[in-house]
Amino acid sequence: MRQLCKGNVAVIKGAILAGCRAYYGYPITPASEVAESAALYIPQVGGTFLQAESEVAAINMVYGAASAGLRVMSASSGPGLSLMQEGISYLAGAELPCVIVDVMRGGPGLGNIAPEQSDYFAMVKGGGHGNYRNLVVAPASVQEMADLTMLAFELADKYRNPAIVLCDGFVGQMVEPLELVDREPALPEKPWAVKGTAETRNNLVTSIFLEPDVLEEHQRQMEAKYARAQQDEPRFELYQAEDAEVLLVGYGIVSRVLRSAVVKLRLQGIRAGLFRPITLWPFPSKALAKAAARVQRVVVVELSNGQMVEDVSLALKGGSPVEFYGRVGGNVPSVEEIESKVLAHAVAV
Amino acid sequence: MRQLCKGNVAVIKGAILAGCRAYYGYPITPASEVAESAALYIPQVGGTFLQAESEVAAINMVYGAASAGLRVMSASSGPGLSLMQEGISYLAGAELPCVIVDVMRGGPGLGNIAPEQSDYFAMVKGGGHGNYRNLVVAPASVQEMADLTMLAFELADKYRNPAIVLCDGFVGQMVEPLELVDREPALPEKPWAVKGTAETRNNLVTSIFLEPDVLEEHQRQMEAKYARAQQDEPRFELYQAEDAEVLLVGYGIVSRVLRSAVVKLRLQGIRAGLFRPITLWPFPSKALAKAAARVQRVVVVELSNGQMVEDVSLALKGGSPVEFYGRVGGNVPSVEEIESKVLAHAVAV
Amino acid sequence: MRQLCKGNVAVIKGAILAGCRAYYGYPITPASEVAESAALYIPQVGGTFLQAESEVAAINMVYGAASAGLRVMSASSGPGLSLMQEGISYLAGAELPCVIVDVMRGGPGLGNIAPEQSDYFAMVKGGGHGNYRNLVVAPASVQEMADLTMLAFELADKYRNPAIVLCDGFVGQMVEPLELVDREPALPEKPWAVKGTAETRNNLVTSIFLEPDVLEEHQRQMEAKYARAQQDEPRFELYQAEDAEVLLVGYGIVSRVLRSAVVKLRLQGIRAGLFRPITLWPFPSKALAKAAARVQRVVVVELSNGQMVEDVSLALKGGSPVEFYGRVGGNVPSVEEIESKVLAHAVAV
Amino acid sequence: MRQLCKGNVAVIKGAILAGCRAYYGYPITPASEVAESAALYIPQVGGTFLQAESEVAAINMVYGAASAGLRVMSASSGPGLSLMQEGISYLAGAELPCVIVDVMRGGPGLGNIAPEQSDYFAMVKGGGHGNYRNLVVAPASVQEMADLTMLAFELADKYRNPAIVLCDGFVGQMVEPLELVDREPALPEKPWAVKGTAETRNNLVTSIFLEPDVLEEHQRQMEAKYARAQQDEPRFELYQAEDAEVLLVGYGIVSRVLRSAVVKLRLQGIRAGLFRPITLWPFPSKALAKAAARVQRVVVVELSNGQMVEDVSLALKGGSPVEFYGRVGGNVPSVEEIESKVLAHAVAV
Repeated sequence: MRQLCKGNVAVIKGAILAGCRAYYGYPITPASEVAESAALYIPQVGGTFLQAESEVAAINMVYGAASAGLRVMSASSGPGLSLMQEGISYLAGAELPCVIVDVMRGGPGLGNIAPEQSDYFAMVKGGGHGNYRNLVVAPASVQEMADLTMLAFELADKYRNPAIVLCDGFVGQMVEPLELVDREPALPEKPWAVKGTAETRNNLVTSIFLEPDVLEEHQRQMEAKYARAQQDEPRFELYQAEDAEVLLVGYGIVSRVLRSAVVKLRLQGIRAGLFRPITLWPFPSKALAKAAARVQRVVVVELSNGQMVEDVSLALKGGSPVEFYGRVGGNVPSVEEIESKVLAHAVAV
Repeated sequence: MRQLCKGNVAVIKGAILAGCRAYYGYPITPASEVAESAALYIPQVGGTFLQAESEVAAINMVYGAASAGLRVMSASSGPGLSLMQEGISYLAGAELPCVIVDVMRGGPGLGNIAPEQSDYFAMVKGGGHGNYRNLVVAPASVQEMADLTMLAFELADKYRNPAIVLCDGFVGQMVEPLELVDREPALPEKPWAVKGTAETRNNLVTSIFLEPDVLEEHQRQMEAKYARAQQDEPRFELYQAEDAEVLLVGYGIVSRVLRSAVVKLRLQGIRAGLFRPITLWPFPSKALAKAAARVQRVVVVELSNGQMVEDVSLALKGGSPVEFYGRVGGNVPSVEEIESKVLAHAVAV
Repeated sequence: MRQLCKGNVAVIKGAILAGCRAYYGYPITPASEVAESAALYIPQVGGTFLQAESEVAAINMVYGAASAGLRVMSASSGPGLSLMQEGISYLAGAELPCVIVDVMRGGPGLGNIAPEQSDYFAMVKGGGHGNYRNLVVAPASVQEMADLTMLAFELADKYRNPAIVLCDGFVGQMVEPLELVDREPALPEKPWAVKGTAETRNNLVTSIFLEPDVLEEHQRQMEAKYARAQQDEPRFELYQAEDAEVLLVGYGIVSRVLRSAVVKLRLQGIRAGLFRPITLWPFPSKALAKAAARVQRVVVVELSNGQMVEDVSLALKGGSPVEFYGRVGGNVPSVEEIESKVLAHAVAV
Repeated sequence: MRQLCKGNVAVIKGAILAGCRAYYGYPITPASEVAESAALYIPQVGGTFLQAESEVAAINMVYGAASAGLRVMSASSGPGLSLMQEGISYLAGAELPCVIVDVMRGGPGLGNIAPEQSDYFAMVKGGGHGNYRNLVVAPASVQEMADLTMLAFELADKYRNPAIVLCDGFVGQMVEPLELVDREPALPEKPWAVKGTAETRNNLVTSIFLEPDVLEEHQRQMEAKYARAQQDEPRFELYQAEDAEVLLVGYGIVSRVLRSAVVKLRLQGIRAGLFRPITLWPFPSKALAKAAARVQRVVVVELSNGQMVEDVSLALKGGSPVEFYGRVGGNVPSVEEIESKVLAHAVAV
């Protein structure tokens, strides 16, 4: 089934194909179409849509539905995600799978409703308290808004952990062709869930472990699964990177500008290449280190003041010089800007 | 005035000496004595203590009082801080000074009430949305609970930004001698505040900037002040680091264990030294790089699964091998553990 | 189908037979079994159960589901009902049908969890703001907990108004035989509802009418339907009232004590009778006036400090002397107490 | 000190003269000027003004400050008062004095912002749960907005109970001369309060009494004080009532229209008189019964669908025929309307 679709709508189409049947949220620009699509489509497949009193209420409803074994999601933008940080920490601590979409807008505070990528730290490094990690995927097209949402549900269940779809307002708002294959979702068994049945009566979903040794053991197990994810799940895309002397690094909408810049720069005889992280956590550090091994310059471009650039630096461990170019406030760099300014003015970090 | 005092109480004594006259919060173990002391002492100096309905309410009251030019504070532990992330982002976005104390407990989720250092990412990298930084100080003694709280108020006003006192439950709960010098706080003028007077009638405290270029300009100014802070404010402590072959790095309660380990290791002929960051943001990267320039090993110890270690790696840029040893769940490593296990088992990162 | 059943459970069995498929609430003793039964049974018939963040959240979800045309309910006890007063006023103002169960406990404030009838004023006179009335039914047995809940759904839809099932903790907690007839509920058409369909796209569910004349007209229409309800809906039960010289008046659990007292008093040669209001609003004033026309004494007994007694006085308009006897705090008068004390000590009002 | 003043502002001027030093609230039309004046004036006398997150939060802060022995207040309009019903019940149950101003607007639900008197039931009969009464005063002029607010503080402390200033939006918004006498408020001792001192350490402010007999005893004591209030506190105003054949009854703004109508009717030879309740609870039943003893008609006029008329009927016990005329939605009857329509069309109840 091929159709023209908006990014925020594609999220819900993907979610439904992934078997998601419960959505709890609170609307906010530029993520509101996610909620609207959920309200329209999820009841049509027998699911529940509920607009809660607040983001705090919504994320705790997600906790409840996830405890019962449902595939469940929410969506918001920066301010709403900040309000959900406690709940996300609880979900991670209780090892509950769920998908949360962050359609990033300009910040901090109220900021504006234009696209940014400034929630990278908040979602990738962990905004909530305690030792946990979010699984984070970063779509760069309407097709990926659906596909990576489906992947997010798979990863969330596989690792029993919240998975974040981190996209900028640009990708959320744009309209592109979307190809979906209708299929029955293969939902995993969740013997740990609390389903109101006799068999699950003694299941306990909790994030409280009062004894230090017990909590430490719980965290060690979480660490072990995070290590597995770091081994198995990094995803990325390379474009003309093999012989590159300048490696551009960017995710989401930025990666599309960078791809065009690679083409233009090559026409000028500059051997540019692109490295696009698809998973932001686990970050594709090894692949990046390999791709950057022979380049002269690594230029990271973000719609932020510089956040992912830290993970790039950590990945390269001083092996290659890392430069950064950022635009904020809703401004997206043009191809020409990358061409001229980036290469001239990117700042060493 | 010399007295025996608990760490959580010393925070409030320091705050009052710094001229803080407003406290809004919600109690949580192991930070509750901060609220209790605030309730006891702040009204005695003519200030306001209010236990709000929730942490969300409390942090927004902090926003209000900070807008009016008061020195104002709150305190909580991990789950409460997570709930405050939206408010902290708003405070940073509106360039409002305030002090927030995080007495860290085990996590994620409910976890337990034992000490941890697992909110490092949430406070230092930024848990809230948007491009901003918290100023973060890390006391390691009861004396510093007072002194660094006073410093936090100074820095908050100097940079018009939230300042976090990040301490573990251990430092919050322990009792030590405290020496305070009674003095009149030198409160800065705040011509930008909204005081209900004719002169301040047209002042606007806001974090909303709808035009992309205007928001970008606002963020550039914030970046500039953050750059100044990175230049001027890093603070740290060195102990026997000059000739060290093994450099131990830790903050808060951990640094005290490491200091004892340095002494013991030196008795065994191992030239150990200690680097203790006092400000976690701005992180004392240059000083650390300098101190680590000639060592063979850098061992970072945290009460977490490994968070500050990223900033250590970023500071050293691959120049020195970085190892990590962490305990969690409320367990604090003993001197012997550092001696034997750390040196044998710390893991390269 | 005949079964032993607890009163609070019977409420949900009746609700499901009435076609109720949505429950939003927050648990509170002694009403918690209503929520528990809803959580257990309503999903089994394809409906939604949701425990909200608070009673304020719950009643606003009821508003939403009622707007969509569903038969929807909530339940709580005194403190929770107080929190719902704003929402109930909104439901009445927007002419939305719903059923709310109040299993009364001792008050005011936190009081205790023992049975009382002290929410009569709050539910019958209207606790919320503005000119509106709740339809109120008062079950006195487990059978009526089911039957009057079904009636409440019928009345709510008939008059497009909230209907309250007002019962004391005693009736909610007791176990008695329950006979239910399985049948398909005859759900009324609700062309005014907002169903997310093209036909209902322009429907407007609202309680706001800015123009005074428009709001007055809206209220006049509400008055007119309330007048119809007062004409058509009063329900009551008489027991040995025809030749009574002493008429006992009570509802809920009290009416069962009074019925036994009537028997005992008759054995002593005192011609006692019972008048039991089944609807508290509309109050069966005419029937009561008729029943009391030839009696020498009217004795109202309540588990309160005297609330329904006002409606009795209003009904009798000075035509018969009205006396009152009340127990509170969870104490229920015994038959002997009615016999001896009431007749001796009831106080003229 | 004589000045022109708006009704809503006069409330705060009276409150400050009465020694009120704490205000917690949330703004709502047509009561917002009460909050604005509190924000302006109360800090000037060293008190606290706080705009809370919601009415629920505000009323619980009132509970806290009242527990500490302060003279404390809040203000709102219908919807806000409904949200406060739980808190008011808690205040009454814990026998805590406070003053709450209800500047009534059209309802139910959102209604509009025009004046009504439709919260009579909600405030006078008790909207919250449990057996309690609010003390209720009803100002009819700007002067009384100040004077009766002062009286409300006196009554609240005398009976340790919430006192309501119930006024319509008309009285709140109008501007009239106000004469205030500056004086030092005579604040009563409150040995029961919890002041954070050694002497008050064991004081317990609570509304929970788990044992039925203990709760019953608590309620009996509350009943006793309510009986004293009914004996001592009814206040009312008579105008040309001695020889009246038609007695008009109204409070607040309505009473001013009725007073003019009395003059006009007398000019036509109709001996009209006015009875104005100043306290709505305790209702001046005895005085009304006496005033109505020889009249031919009693006509109650309200800006509601008929609420106070029930208390009039209860007071008269069928001794005089009671008629009712009401306008709603923000419409206020004119003198001519009273003259012509009321006398012709008032409806017997």
